[in-house]
Amino acid sequence: MRNSRRGAVDPFIVMDVMEAARQAEADGRHIIHMEVGQPGTAAPKGAQEALAKAMQEDALGYTVALGIPELRAKIAELYGEWYNIDLDPGRVVVTSGSSGAFLLAFTTLFEAGERVAIGAPGYPSYRQILKALSLRPLDVPSAPENRLQPVPDDLRAMDFEGLMVASPANPTGTMLDRGAMKALIDLCHDKNAAFISDEIYHGIEYEAKAVTALELTDDCYVINSFSKYFSMTGWRVGWMVVPEDHVRKVERLAQNMFICAPHASQVAALAAMDCRDELEANMAVYRANRKLMADGLPKAGFDKFAPPDGAFYFYVDVSEHTEDSRAFAREILHEAGVAVTPGLDFDPVRGAGTLRFSYARATEDIAEGLARLEAFMAKRG
Amino acid sequence: MRNSRRGAVDPFIVMDVMEAARQAEADGRHIIHMEVGQPGTAAPKGAQEALAKAMQEDALGYTVALGIPELRAKIAELYGEWYNIDLDPGRVVVTSGSSGAFLLAFTTLFEAGERVAIGAPGYPSYRQILKALSLRPLDVPSAPENRLQPVPDDLRAMDFEGLMVASPANPTGTMLDRGAMKALIDLCHDKNAAFISDEIYHGIEYEAKAVTALELTDDCYVINSFSKYFSMTGWRVGWMVVPEDHVRKVERLAQNMFICAPHASQVAALAAMDCRDELEANMAVYRANRKLMADGLPKAGFDKFAPPDGAFYFYVDVSEHTEDSRAFAREILHEAGVAVTPGLDFDPVRGAGTLRFSYARATEDIAEGLARLEAFMAKRG
Repeated sequence: MRNSRRGAVDPFIVMDVMEAARQAEADGRHIIHMEVGQPGTAAPKGAQEALAKAMQEDALGYTVALGIPELRAKIAELYGEWYNIDLDPGRVVVTSGSSGAFLLAFTTLFEAGERVAIGAPGYPSYRQILKALSLRPLDVPSAPENRLQPVPDDLRAMDFEGLMVASPANPTGTMLDRGAMKALIDLCHDKNAAFISDEIYHGIEYEAKAVTALELTDDCYVINSFSKYFSMTGWRVGWMVVPEDHVRKVERLAQNMFICAPHASQVAALAAMDCRDELEANMAVYRANRKLMADGLPKAGFDKFAPPDGAFYFYVDVSEHTEDSRAFAREILHEAGVAVTPGLDFDPVRGAGTLRFSYARATEDIAEGLARLEAFMAKRG
Repeated sequence: MRNSRRGAVDPFIVMDVMEAARQAEADGRHIIHMEVGQPGTAAPKGAQEALAKAMQEDALGYTVALGIPELRAKIAELYGEWYNIDLDPGRVVVTSGSSGAFLLAFTTLFEAGERVAIGAPGYPSYRQILKALSLRPLDVPSAPENRLQPVPDDLRAMDFEGLMVASPANPTGTMLDRGAMKALIDLCHDKNAAFISDEIYHGIEYEAKAVTALELTDDCYVINSFSKYFSMTGWRVGWMVVPEDHVRKVERLAQNMFICAPHASQVAALAAMDCRDELEANMAVYRANRKLMADGLPKAGFDKFAPPDGAFYFYVDVSEHTEDSRAFAREILHEAGVAVTPGLDFDPVRGAGTLRFSYARATEDIAEGLARLEAFMAKRG
């Protein structure tokens, strides 16, 4: 049978960790999960109730490709509330998770063979989706002094047709402030490159509100999701904001490539937007966990990180402890009973010396995980 | 802002019909919907109940990329029941609708620029998805004497890297029997082309059981869906069966491109597979509707069609009545109050002389639609 080169994407190394953790649990061990990239919480109660009701009243067939109009309107309102932006709901495209948004954005904007710059470290699927679409991901190694976010100097000498940034970023949790975002947007305009802003961790911020690219320009694609702040990972519903004159094109692609985002998930998402108390309760947990992590990780000897502005990760330079983050993660799992993610998924080069610790789960798990890490590292010496 | 050529897909002409029908209804007119490509029924009650229960017990986060193991096992069992095939559940990939399966299949199998042959008439999104992925759709005009299904003679002189067939097909409802399917598979093997079988209308058959490509070869991709027989269009859940040595590659692509199919939809789909009574009740409606259509369409002067073996469409040659199916559909909507789909969506060339009539809705609507069509055509003369 035939096979394509573009489909030959790299494996997620974290999958090996997850499988090893599953195996350890099957063997009767208790494992603390700091490798996961999703909230442990369910969709808000109000979202579940709205869907239960809708199932009794509606056949839940296809929606229009751009999404339920009420949901698009409500998302547009959120931009007023969060950023004081007056956003036309006609520019909002409801997608099958941010995954669907990436596929739509990349096919709308780029021809096969074109280059899209992405920061390293960064979300590993950017690279793989680009390759699967016959595009060329260009890794941009970002500097610790820039809190592992790309800056114009990293990019000026490069040729590319698009730049994708993430703020807050996975795996670092660091953000681009207004000035840093503006500098990257200006550079893209100078280079006639598309600017794509991954904002899926917006809402999960600790000190300052995250900046959306839409505060600075309408000439960009903004991608967001109900997976993180709204705690709806498995529902596969997200959204994208595109320039007004791109809406029709994106609509046609979405009709053909997806038909629509899952109807049930759209119904649940619409209701989730009214469940602020429950969502803020989740945020209180993340906030407590972050504080525990900021204190506990250094006690274990993991003190080289930029304090995260958002999301629920610490990305730690562990190069003084190992030259092989994969083996180190395996050791931590077996010795300490804590699952963590080797940095190689996020940065194929420098990731051999980094680990990502997630604090998305319950606070007691985080406390226990930190205690185990501290004991393990004390013993390891 | 930048823009890609590959993203410049054609509009669905049926969308104009649907918008015009919506407008007519907003103006107070009563419209019979024979343009729709989806069941009017909801997901089976048992599916809804299973999800309502799961929402109370489970956070419904991400599933593994290949889908819930129980669902994969149950789908594999269906191949035993329907076709007497012993299928390894490990070869079943749960997808975000058949849409997700097409995206996965095409990226796994083909490089940018490669050619995939598709029958004309055929499902319009095949062509558009291929273009969006920088592939080249090759239309294969099929002959009325072959019931508008491609045969090896249509393909022998062509060069291509893949062939996609659909049986029962949209828009015709005709099927490939065992011999016809085998001949196409053999041709693909001779040409070292991938064979992809779209089987999303399986289960909705009227005379003979549809043949799956898996009865004839393991060296193929089979795509199916919960949208049609299982009446779950808006849920966006389908599946794909791939050769054993492709599973890992498809899994990696799915992890990156989709993360997983919607968890809630997978839960509902699993339960839907046990709701045979309700599904067979839906089938009884389709069967009654098909009979009404087979009698009523000729009475209205629409008698040039191959009787459909499956699905819920009649595809009619109306070239004696019009040279512009788009204008004719508009006329039928305005004069008769019946929305139908111009053939141009399915066959950019010969579709100017064809219409697709769907009978997926309630029997009383179908009867009323046929009466309106007969009266309209009698008056038109």
